[in-house]
Amino acid sequence: MSTTHRELIEGRPVLVVIDIQGGDSVDGEESAIPFMPGYQKAMDQAPPLIAKARECGIPVVFFQEAHRRDLVDFGRELDGAEDVHLLEGDVGTDIAKALGVRPDDYVIRKRRYSCFFGTEFEILLKGLRAQTLILIGGHTDVCVHYTFVDAHQHDYFCRVVEDAVAGSSSDAHDGALRAMEYLQTGARRQSAEVVEAFEGYARSSAPSSPR
Amino acid sequence: MSTTHRELIEGRPVLVVIDIQGGDSVDGEESAIPFMPGYQKAMDQAPPLIAKARECGIPVVFFQEAHRRDLVDFGRELDGAEDVHLLEGDVGTDIAKALGVRPDDYVIRKRRYSCFFGTEFEILLKGLRAQTLILIGGHTDVCVHYTFVDAHQHDYFCRVVEDAVAGSSSDAHDGALRAMEYLQTGARRQSAEVVEAFEGYARSSAPSSPR
Amino acid sequence: MSTTHRELIEGRPVLVVIDIQGGDSVDGEESAIPFMPGYQKAMDQAPPLIAKARECGIPVVFFQEAHRRDLVDFGRELDGAEDVHLLEGDVGTDIAKALGVRPDDYVIRKRRYSCFFGTEFEILLKGLRAQTLILIGGHTDVCVHYTFVDAHQHDYFCRVVEDAVAGSSSDAHDGALRAMEYLQTGARRQSAEVVEAFEGYARSSAPSSPR
Amino acid sequence: MSTTHRELIEGRPVLVVIDIQGGDSVDGEESAIPFMPGYQKAMDQAPPLIAKARECGIPVVFFQEAHRRDLVDFGRELDGAEDVHLLEGDVGTDIAKALGVRPDDYVIRKRRYSCFFGTEFEILLKGLRAQTLILIGGHTDVCVHYTFVDAHQHDYFCRVVEDAVAGSSSDAHDGALRAMEYLQTGARRQSAEVVEAFEGYARSSAPSSPR
Repeated sequence: MSTTHRELIEGRPVLVVIDIQGGDSVDGEESAIPFMPGYQKAMDQAPPLIAKARECGIPVVFFQEAHRRDLVDFGRELDGAEDVHLLEGDVGTDIAKALGVRPDDYVIRKRRYSCFFGTEFEILLKGLRAQTLILIGGHTDVCVHYTFVDAHQHDYFCRVVEDAVAGSSSDAHDGALRAMEYLQTGARRQSAEVVEAFEGYARSSAPSSPR
Repeated sequence: MSTTHRELIEGRPVLVVIDIQGGDSVDGEESAIPFMPGYQKAMDQAPPLIAKARECGIPVVFFQEAHRRDLVDFGRELDGAEDVHLLEGDVGTDIAKALGVRPDDYVIRKRRYSCFFGTEFEILLKGLRAQTLILIGGHTDVCVHYTFVDAHQHDYFCRVVEDAVAGSSSDAHDGALRAMEYLQTGARRQSAEVVEAFEGYARSSAPSSPR
Repeated sequence: MSTTHRELIEGRPVLVVIDIQGGDSVDGEESAIPFMPGYQKAMDQAPPLIAKARECGIPVVFFQEAHRRDLVDFGRELDGAEDVHLLEGDVGTDIAKALGVRPDDYVIRKRRYSCFFGTEFEILLKGLRAQTLILIGGHTDVCVHYTFVDAHQHDYFCRVVEDAVAGSSSDAHDGALRAMEYLQTGARRQSAEVVEAFEGYARSSAPSSPR
Repeated sequence: MSTTHRELIEGRPVLVVIDIQGGDSVDGEESAIPFMPGYQKAMDQAPPLIAKARECGIPVVFFQEAHRRDLVDFGRELDGAEDVHLLEGDVGTDIAKALGVRPDDYVIRKRRYSCFFGTEFEILLKGLRAQTLILIGGHTDVCVHYTFVDAHQHDYFCRVVEDAVAGSSSDAHDGALRAMEYLQTGARRQSAEVVEAFEGYARSSAPSSPR
């Protein structure tokens, strides 16, 4: 049980933007993946958070789930609620334009749900000497939750911005948020708090105030 | 979305017994870890399932969560709902006697929630040429769920025996079962079905009926 | 000690083409990485082997070492004999044109020496149900050797085509070949034998002769 | 190429003692594993280094290679120069008594060559906040070399004590030492230097001289 008080940001933070892709498939109609109501509204919180992170000198890592067109890398992903989804080369697989990804940004393509599974994420995080991961994107109950779990098991402080994530259903979203809070007390945060913490971090790490 | 019908057992099965340890700490009073009501009743389903697996020639792998007494390997596990728990050498850390573990059984000690994280589990599963993992034990919403997720990401067929797992709370238990069913349709199973499938496997793999 | 005789190809094979990149930096003059004499000659063995694999229905996986331009992912790679090398966007980082990579080929970018480290390689190999990995490219004593070791530890049959790999020096090349042969007897092979084995595989897996 | 001068110890050190096991099988006669001449003499350097590390407050991690008696976890290890070796329960599998392992020491059992493969080593190293790994034990060209490579790829500073490691043959030992030096300049060290560095570390980390 946490007796030590933890700040929203402990040590060096990184903003992790998970699977905000495609265009208009989030209406839920005939989509290969289920989406909860209000999904797009949550994703709309992402651009201002990304802009604020950039302004405050906080690294941003963008994840994109993508599968090879010959379906070789789906593993068991078609044995459950999801149909064939996010093929390389499909427009809907592109990272959403609204995020404003730049050529020199950190973008990582992944084949599985967790951002750590079969990717270079740990290499990058060690290179950035990251200590706190702040998660936004989707699905709360799949890629966000399972990335949180792996980050937790890799000893990172983890935060999930609850108004900037959305799930496969409202129930699944709520359950995953509770599961993350079980793992780290204070994990659930609001965009407004995160913006404030980013600004505080920028001030404390400014050249005139050496850490 | 699963269009292929899957059997309870696909290929070679393994029964995975997760963190059934200690003696009498499951009453929930002053425990370092929260338990849902009916926890012990679910754990009592384990011994007959283990006996049936042995009878049917199905490998059993026992997991034990244990932490070093100097607390070096807790990582972020004390930042959430759990207090210091399962130290090496404590009586409560021993695998429950009722399971009847034998000297030549597969027993794996783990430091994290997922049975795959920092363990030899993948080495053993490859050696056994395992294809379907059948999970029992606790907590449904922590070690069982996160082991299921990793097994799923490693391409195993995964089943969870819902009357032989229990969670940190009834809500968390229910949510985790739904999350697992989301990943693989037909993941949730009852002990009675599993016993039947074990017996069917034994018949089909008997010497007189070569596979 | 191997008492079982092993074929060059056991089960399903994959040809793994490691770090054959760039254009003319292999002359050794002012290169960021040391090369042994005859390096280019060994790399010239690759295109016909790749063509033969395609002809015989054997999957080919191309690896490309590449580092982010801000140097964030070099780890300890600049603490030894190598200087800053293979930056994303540099011409010399591109996979060699002579290999004839096609848009739908399996291409994996890596940040470290082993093709398994921080990559999707295991996901792809499981999807392909690969059992034997046949390695070509460079350096024999770095990326080839350490990929061999990881493949070996992941239970794959491993072969290295000794006239189609080259090292940082002739001594290091020879030592690495001996180290690989230590791990798996019969690991060292010639291009001519590999071509013959590919053709045999194609015949045995032809539709008229079901496996 | 290393332009930054590196100390023998960068940050927090850990002494890693690899596979110093058994009793008298190092004579090379009818052993399941080949040994170079002078093997035992190199292993005799271990106890004083371990004692010095303890005296200087430097953590020591002992590794033991061990295989299950049903041979399930040998993977491809019997396809090369090694025969069935180091079974659990055999006297020769025990860590050598001369090392003086204590009940509360860090001991990790492994199934493969690299100390990182299928083990809790990364969890422990993160818990210790380790930065420099100093390797002793055997074989220089197998478990020591491949542990060095993984540690290197995980961003640790790595040192190998060349008079406290020994290989499967003198040539293989020499080649592996050169390969490690290729990866990190200054990796090869003598016991005497290491003792001196341990003492310097103890002085600099003493309570009266806070770091």
